[in-house]
Amino acid sequence: MIANITLNLPSVIEFGAGKIGTLPHHLQGFTRVFILVDKPVFTKIEPIAGELEKSGSTVLLSTEVVPEPPIDTLSGLLQTVKLFNPDAVVGVGGGSTMDLAKLLAVLCSGEQQIHEVIGINKLGSRKTRLILAATTSGTGSEVTPIAVLTDTREKLKKGVVSPHLVADVTIVDPELTLALPAPVTAATGMDAMTHCIEAYTNRFAHPVIDNIALQGIRLISENLETAVLAGDNLEARTAMALGSLYGGLCLGPVNTAAVHALAYPLGGEFNVPHGVANSVLLPFVMDFNLPACTEKYAQVARTMGVTIQGSPDSVAKEGIRNIKQLSQRCGIPSGLRQLNIHAGAIPSMAKSAMLVTRLLDNNPRKLELSDAQAIFTAAFNGSAG
Amino acid sequence: MIANITLNLPSVIEFGAGKIGTLPHHLQGFTRVFILVDKPVFTKIEPIAGELEKSGSTVLLSTEVVPEPPIDTLSGLLQTVKLFNPDAVVGVGGGSTMDLAKLLAVLCSGEQQIHEVIGINKLGSRKTRLILAATTSGTGSEVTPIAVLTDTREKLKKGVVSPHLVADVTIVDPELTLALPAPVTAATGMDAMTHCIEAYTNRFAHPVIDNIALQGIRLISENLETAVLAGDNLEARTAMALGSLYGGLCLGPVNTAAVHALAYPLGGEFNVPHGVANSVLLPFVMDFNLPACTEKYAQVARTMGVTIQGSPDSVAKEGIRNIKQLSQRCGIPSGLRQLNIHAGAIPSMAKSAMLVTRLLDNNPRKLELSDAQAIFTAAFNGSAG
Repeated sequence: MIANITLNLPSVIEFGAGKIGTLPHHLQGFTRVFILVDKPVFTKIEPIAGELEKSGSTVLLSTEVVPEPPIDTLSGLLQTVKLFNPDAVVGVGGGSTMDLAKLLAVLCSGEQQIHEVIGINKLGSRKTRLILAATTSGTGSEVTPIAVLTDTREKLKKGVVSPHLVADVTIVDPELTLALPAPVTAATGMDAMTHCIEAYTNRFAHPVIDNIALQGIRLISENLETAVLAGDNLEARTAMALGSLYGGLCLGPVNTAAVHALAYPLGGEFNVPHGVANSVLLPFVMDFNLPACTEKYAQVARTMGVTIQGSPDSVAKEGIRNIKQLSQRCGIPSGLRQLNIHAGAIPSMAKSAMLVTRLLDNNPRKLELSDAQAIFTAAFNGSAG
Repeated sequence: MIANITLNLPSVIEFGAGKIGTLPHHLQGFTRVFILVDKPVFTKIEPIAGELEKSGSTVLLSTEVVPEPPIDTLSGLLQTVKLFNPDAVVGVGGGSTMDLAKLLAVLCSGEQQIHEVIGINKLGSRKTRLILAATTSGTGSEVTPIAVLTDTREKLKKGVVSPHLVADVTIVDPELTLALPAPVTAATGMDAMTHCIEAYTNRFAHPVIDNIALQGIRLISENLETAVLAGDNLEARTAMALGSLYGGLCLGPVNTAAVHALAYPLGGEFNVPHGVANSVLLPFVMDFNLPACTEKYAQVARTMGVTIQGSPDSVAKEGIRNIKQLSQRCGIPSGLRQLNIHAGAIPSMAKSAMLVTRLLDNNPRKLELSDAQAIFTAAFNGSAG
């Protein structure tokens, strides 16, 4: 029997090349617009801001984004935004920018403080219109009810989860990703792949999301290498943007699992970008999970184009090898060693990861502290695939 | 290259058995609630209305639904609803009820008259919250930007199309469909199948919608017969509810084609219910379209479980045969003759159908007046499949 599911969705998803041009249409009737934008796409947004001003809106444009945003960054921005008092907040960028925009949109009306909203369903409401445009493919944040902050004191990533964080309008314009550097394309692309794989093999998997996840896996495996090696290939960029959107749609209803839990301390303690941390860990967590979801990993492999005949186990293993090879061809670091993480940090990272029970509970194979240590150790040395 | 697409979606889709119980949650903060409800599910909604009243809301409950609603029915209801002045409108029922609820929600604030909004994108805005719950599987209206009225003077169905008609919250609770009589289950189920097939083979097909459409075709072909023959089978009802939801999601971005265009005069002139008209016409339009979309019809066939080897043409034909047989097993009338339509009406019905250019333009094969006549003639006599 098909299980119950709740989907929280943007009212509008504008997908395709040039769709950032619909932004003024979706801001009609809003008079004070705060736009947080990633520096590399600033020149694409400036003329749109000009257009908004011409039609009578007051626009405040900011590029004050810090990657893997610390709580302090949000506090600082929040002061500015409260003073500006917008009726619409727009975030144009990667996950860090969109996550900040989400939290600014809910917190700028002043009813709740940052520390009150961390966790699941702590947000009371959102009164300010929220529009997100993704510039990486990607985080998926453009369609998720999740925003992640870095607690620099506790050296931990902390999540805010609430339907009020889902944007009113989401714009996925692959033209905004054309200038994304190869290493970021690779890491964010493998992050999107991780979203799809961890949702599809999730303990709380759902057929509605399985269907989306498999489409995402197919699109990303077919197009990531081209997007990395030929960044100006709009066809590959468009397919990656859709694959990433699909990955994002997996996150609200089903979410991720052990890869993301183990990636948290890499971000919190060593400032490794979220996409890189997930990309490096993905195949090692898959090696660990294999006995618990052999048939599903075989389906992932077939969706990636693996055509060998054989037992589900051998097909699944070929799929994991394919993922390792795809990562290598895209220039993803093959192990934690290359990320300047020292082996001595593994015990504390493992301990830290075990705290992310919200995601570990989703993992198809139960994971103990010793397992986390073993996965980090395997990932430390990397592997020839 | 993946083409651009705009998706207009409900902010929340609640899917699954018992989900109608989330209605009070989604009406929190709303004080005057108008609920239009189909008589057969009235007893399911009455206690929920009581719950709302207990928590301080004023509720007006109406069952004044006329199938294939004439414009006059809407006018009458609109007077009542304007007087009541609701801040939320809820529609619980089949397509007729949900379409009326949609139009009441946009028109009750009084800025626009009915005749001003017929057509595409004529609606200015919607100020009233709109929640829809589907009780057939189905129309798909629970997620579409479309409402259809019957113009009894011109004997024509007329469509209102606008993103403002997409509900804020959609509830798809298969328990509400358990009491649906077999003939309605059959006709609305084949209607949902038609939505998926006409979207998948549409001239403006899109990969995002293809994926949804194929899942819908699979679910409906696997579960419709059980839902018809064993109406209390919640598993089959749940699968049908999801298939129908998928069919509805196809309609906004891609929409239907010649089956629906040809069905319009059957409704407008002979009051044949929308689902019945589509079900009867589907295989005959597929016979006509076959040369223009052989490979896609073959994929439809494979998705329905056709496993024969052979040319795409032979696989596609086997698929069309399967659809005819499924219709027969579900008790769908095999021809127009059984619907009390006389052969003499064919020329005027064909002429009338040719006016529905909005849908005919989507058809994979160009259709002339003589083709429409030929399809109606074939459908008049029915076929052994």
